[in-house]
Amino acid sequence: MKLSFTKSAIFIALLFGMKAQAQQASWIWYPGDLDIWVSNKMQNRRTERGAFLPPFWKMDSHYVLVEFHKEFNLASAEEVSLYVEGQYNVKVDGQAFPGYPTKITVPAGKHKLSLKVYGQDKVPAIYVKGKNIVSDGTWLATFEDKEWIDASGKASDKSGTTYVSAGSWNLTDPLQLPSQFKLSTKPLEAAKTEPLDKGLVADFGRETFGFIKLHGLKGKGRLHIYYGESREEALSAGHCETLDLLEIDLKGKTDSVIGLSKAFRYVNCQPEGNVTLDKVSMLYEYAPVLEKGNFRCSDEQVNKIYDVARYTFHLNTREFFIDGIKRDRWVWSGDAYQSYLMNYYSFNESPIVKRTLLAQRGKDPVTAHINTIMDYSFYWFLGIYDYYQYSGDRKFVQDVYPRMKSLMDYVLNRRNKDGLLEWMPGDWIFIDWADKLSKDGEVSFEQLLFCRSLETMALCAAMANDTEAAATYKKLAAELKDKLFKLYWNESKQALVHSRINGQPTDNVTRYANMFGIFFDYFTPQQKQGVKQHVLMNDKINKITTPYMRFYELEALCAMGEQSYVLKQMKDYWGGMLDLGATSFWEEYNPDKKGAEHLSMYGRPFGKSLCHAWGASPIYLLGKYYLGIKPLTAGYETYLVEPALGGLEWMEGKVPTPGGEISLYCSKQEIRVKSDGGSGVLRFKSTVKPVVKGGAAVEVGKRTYELKLQKGIAYKVNYQK
Amino acid sequence: MKLSFTKSAIFIALLFGMKAQAQQASWIWYPGDLDIWVSNKMQNRRTERGAFLPPFWKMDSHYVLVEFHKEFNLASAEEVSLYVEGQYNVKVDGQAFPGYPTKITVPAGKHKLSLKVYGQDKVPAIYVKGKNIVSDGTWLATFEDKEWIDASGKASDKSGTTYVSAGSWNLTDPLQLPSQFKLSTKPLEAAKTEPLDKGLVADFGRETFGFIKLHGLKGKGRLHIYYGESREEALSAGHCETLDLLEIDLKGKTDSVIGLSKAFRYVNCQPEGNVTLDKVSMLYEYAPVLEKGNFRCSDEQVNKIYDVARYTFHLNTREFFIDGIKRDRWVWSGDAYQSYLMNYYSFNESPIVKRTLLAQRGKDPVTAHINTIMDYSFYWFLGIYDYYQYSGDRKFVQDVYPRMKSLMDYVLNRRNKDGLLEWMPGDWIFIDWADKLSKDGEVSFEQLLFCRSLETMALCAAMANDTEAAATYKKLAAELKDKLFKLYWNESKQALVHSRINGQPTDNVTRYANMFGIFFDYFTPQQKQGVKQHVLMNDKINKITTPYMRFYELEALCAMGEQSYVLKQMKDYWGGMLDLGATSFWEEYNPDKKGAEHLSMYGRPFGKSLCHAWGASPIYLLGKYYLGIKPLTAGYETYLVEPALGGLEWMEGKVPTPGGEISLYCSKQEIRVKSDGGSGVLRFKSTVKPVVKGGAAVEVGKRTYELKLQKGIAYKVNYQK
Repeated sequence: MKLSFTKSAIFIALLFGMKAQAQQASWIWYPGDLDIWVSNKMQNRRTERGAFLPPFWKMDSHYVLVEFHKEFNLASAEEVSLYVEGQYNVKVDGQAFPGYPTKITVPAGKHKLSLKVYGQDKVPAIYVKGKNIVSDGTWLATFEDKEWIDASGKASDKSGTTYVSAGSWNLTDPLQLPSQFKLSTKPLEAAKTEPLDKGLVADFGRETFGFIKLHGLKGKGRLHIYYGESREEALSAGHCETLDLLEIDLKGKTDSVIGLSKAFRYVNCQPEGNVTLDKVSMLYEYAPVLEKGNFRCSDEQVNKIYDVARYTFHLNTREFFIDGIKRDRWVWSGDAYQSYLMNYYSFNESPIVKRTLLAQRGKDPVTAHINTIMDYSFYWFLGIYDYYQYSGDRKFVQDVYPRMKSLMDYVLNRRNKDGLLEWMPGDWIFIDWADKLSKDGEVSFEQLLFCRSLETMALCAAMANDTEAAATYKKLAAELKDKLFKLYWNESKQALVHSRINGQPTDNVTRYANMFGIFFDYFTPQQKQGVKQHVLMNDKINKITTPYMRFYELEALCAMGEQSYVLKQMKDYWGGMLDLGATSFWEEYNPDKKGAEHLSMYGRPFGKSLCHAWGASPIYLLGKYYLGIKPLTAGYETYLVEPALGGLEWMEGKVPTPGGEISLYCSKQEIRVKSDGGSGVLRFKSTVKPVVKGGAAVEVGKRTYELKLQKGIAYKVNYQK
Repeated sequence: MKLSFTKSAIFIALLFGMKAQAQQASWIWYPGDLDIWVSNKMQNRRTERGAFLPPFWKMDSHYVLVEFHKEFNLASAEEVSLYVEGQYNVKVDGQAFPGYPTKITVPAGKHKLSLKVYGQDKVPAIYVKGKNIVSDGTWLATFEDKEWIDASGKASDKSGTTYVSAGSWNLTDPLQLPSQFKLSTKPLEAAKTEPLDKGLVADFGRETFGFIKLHGLKGKGRLHIYYGESREEALSAGHCETLDLLEIDLKGKTDSVIGLSKAFRYVNCQPEGNVTLDKVSMLYEYAPVLEKGNFRCSDEQVNKIYDVARYTFHLNTREFFIDGIKRDRWVWSGDAYQSYLMNYYSFNESPIVKRTLLAQRGKDPVTAHINTIMDYSFYWFLGIYDYYQYSGDRKFVQDVYPRMKSLMDYVLNRRNKDGLLEWMPGDWIFIDWADKLSKDGEVSFEQLLFCRSLETMALCAAMANDTEAAATYKKLAAELKDKLFKLYWNESKQALVHSRINGQPTDNVTRYANMFGIFFDYFTPQQKQGVKQHVLMNDKINKITTPYMRFYELEALCAMGEQSYVLKQMKDYWGGMLDLGATSFWEEYNPDKKGAEHLSMYGRPFGKSLCHAWGASPIYLLGKYYLGIKPLTAGYETYLVEPALGGLEWMEGKVPTPGGEISLYCSKQEIRVKSDGGSGVLRFKSTVKPVVKGGAAVEVGKRTYELKLQKGIAYKVNYQK
């Protein structure tokens, strides 16, 4: 035992040594601050018919004065380069260098290097690079030094300072300042341009996003630019949602790029006076993410749905996960929650998940729900634990936990006398865009999300070593779960009813609480079947008309093995949009509507967003419930592969994981699977005894087999569906 | 009755009409935000030997997204000019104008004008000017709109938005942007310049503050500038507290102004290379305040003390009331509290008081005491009520009350099991700069300030119509007062002891709690006499060596009628500094020290500030306890004039009040008094029956007379002291 312990210790030391050598310097700041700052910038880019349209909720700001430090033990003195955004000082062991040095020498031995930075307009940020001394997330940061001195100048030996790990996005170029962070661009030509009136209409072939470039602009007068996700919108000078009005006074032909990027497929340029222009092109603006996940199958319509969903999702994956590119260009928590899940099956970009979560949460004090919406506070909690499951990033949970706690304090303080949540001044109870959806009394859907959030808090508190709170949250969750079944479960309707008003459960059954109850696994097997039959597959229950809630509806059905039914729904619903010419998926789609009705929302003829992140859920459903790949423990350390063809002849795809990727091919006779990391289980049904290359399948139930998967091995299974 | 009511109504309407006409547009912002923003800027101007030295406490920031609105009822349409700092939209009745208009027309009738402004780098601020529509403190502001819509675009009829009165400093010039706010400057020449080594030393004749101007600068090389409040400091290249190092490369002679203003009397310029310069002058930087208060008397030394105190105070009256002009240039609450009181007897600048209070308090959440110092939180509460007493500005108390409440919540949450306050991690218990002053256990001084703060909270809660909280605070204060006498009053020592350690009162008697107990009026008449004899006038009790605590020590003695004794002390202590050549009053003065010892502090040879606001207390003592003028009810609605010559042959002076000024002349035979507003009482003792011009004196006690004072009447009393 002793020997093996020593060995491990050496091994760990070597690992750490390697890690330190491989470490790269990156820009750091107070955690969450650049997230908030950049999101403020992004969310204040919305315009509506030329007027600035900022969010209505509180926007926080960064800490303007931040101290960063780390202790280093150097074998020899080293020169360190300093890059700083803000006004700053640099100290070694508390002794300041005069001025604003860009290079210092840190002597050999154990020394504390600290920088204190003031930045009102920009986030205080530093980039420090020596041979061993590099700035990264292992540095500590604080926004207040609780230190003091006596009259002799001696500092107190008692400090009350709270230090946290510095924030970082892995920005490793010292000359790329965090305040200059921006997305990539590339030039794109219009697919087609046609003259119209005195101007022209350019069609970029599909929904897109970027900066319009005007070529050969000349003359004196005005130029109106009307943007449209649809041709109808671009041609509607009086009702298109976004527009630009330029005052032109150019003697010679000039090319000019419009400073604010926008969403469109069609651009209608209408000059006044003697203004002319040759053509328009664009600088496509995009997040430079890799498409790590993939899905292909025997059904070309499903492949098209997958491609358009992935494009829709890419367009809405920007500095943060936003709701829609035409409007609102904001970070809505309920929308982003779905984007996180889609992301795990496509780009798997952890930085964007973390930054969106931090941006949404902002700073204390909590004065409202996230985006002011009660349900949106709950999705925020859930998103953090999901992120942990998919990434294995325990440190993020620990770092964000204090902000989880203060948000949950806010929620707990708003319980009514029965311990339930109902509307209070300032709350928006959203649920979904649906006509005549009652928000009165205590809505079961909100209690369900509240309960799941408490369970999440218990898990995260434990990870943050707050065991006392973990126990409290666990107890609160159990009590609430018990209560909500007592209050809302209606045995004769085999459903959770929608709400309780004046202390009485209503008769109203909606899909919301019931479908969440399925994949939260809150129901007994019997209740599950009851809900499926009486609610989910019951046409008399009000239909859902947003992809937003169709996401969960279909997820619930998939979780119960209804992949064949869901595939048909998917083809109908998303295929329905494609049939109407969609080049990206919409904010809302009601098959009962006709023609231009599909473009209107919020009482405005072109109010609807035709490229909405929540429209892209097939990415998630196909990866998680058809390829059937999901983590069983955090970061795919263990995982399950349980393919379900749902009527397809064959499918293949890959899912990104922290350790690499898991790739799968599945037909009715053959399964091939390979993973770059973790320990997996392939579970499948076969009417015959399967033949396995690479391992051995074990029969674990009636015609059900399991094959243990090790990393790096290409397994091939011949079976019979 | 009916008639008179109608008359009044007409009269009120006329008054309002007049007021509306007289109303001036001013820049407005979210209350407290410009205060915080400008104070961040100011407090980050400190340097120490060339290194940036920012505060150690948390610096807050402004709300980056703010909505402003007001409803107007217009007889006819009017054109309104808009000036905005930030990115904005403008709406009339919720309907946005496109773009960023600088002029709009508001139609006749009742309309709501709103602007929403985003400013990350600068405080969102607006200036709106029409004939009737003007921006001012009557506008409402919010940092979050708790409004939401349904799928039809209809806004909810239930709002949870909290609106507060907009903040304003009465900046009435639309072209003077709030973010450009700065103090005034004027050129000043050095009193004397002498050559030294390769350079020169300029002596500006007395302590001063501003931007150094270098005349006829030429050559290539470096120029060192060493600043000194004393000649010794300016000549100590290695130890002066502030310095500049310039890289010069100038072919022809050039004049140049250094960008960062500093404190100095002496400036030592030492060139390297072939750099030469002809001379230095300065741009004196100052707050353009009027010296509304005054004091003159038969003792020329006292007059000199008053003048130097007023100059000291003016130098430290800047964007905010700061502690000292060499260092720290920060807003310390304990220091500022004394400045407020001095201000009421000199400049009477309400805006600087309010802005300092708001800057200190910053934003929620409260994470530390103000400046991290426990006593400094308490002075902050006290300062607000004092401000109300002297200004009558009830609205400010109401506006700031929520921030008072959250700070008091923080304090209340830090009580120990006995309901007392003792050191906790993060607390700095300051009291005073004094050797071996124990901060262990529960210090009586802190409980006393805590108790006074609770009393203050009770008064302010009542003003803010929070009657429930008012009752709670009142009860808490009464309980604490009772407790502190039980715990700390030592009958045999006739004093409150300094502290309680491990549940046991110590034997240690210090002046602090005892002198505050006097002017808080916490003692019985007997206890007062005991404290006076056994503590305040007892040389065996450790002496106070800072003007900071001498302020309260002398105030306590004045409050007990010891003006003659205090005058001698004042002449000794402040006269002692003058005898040593002081041109402004110091941070600390211990008459027992010698020579250069007077310049050192905090273990640094020139660490002491020779121009510290708290050195200026004679302004306050002479006004309040010699002229004897003070408000009895808020804003001098009623006031007392109770002159005390304290051994002087005569004195004269004036005290500014919200209604104008109160002027007084008093010799041993004659008193002349006149006030511009309020109802006053002149109280004086006379051995003969006084002869009064302008009114009639009433004998109210043994040889004590009172004369009622009405505004505008010049009273003259002949009497015999």
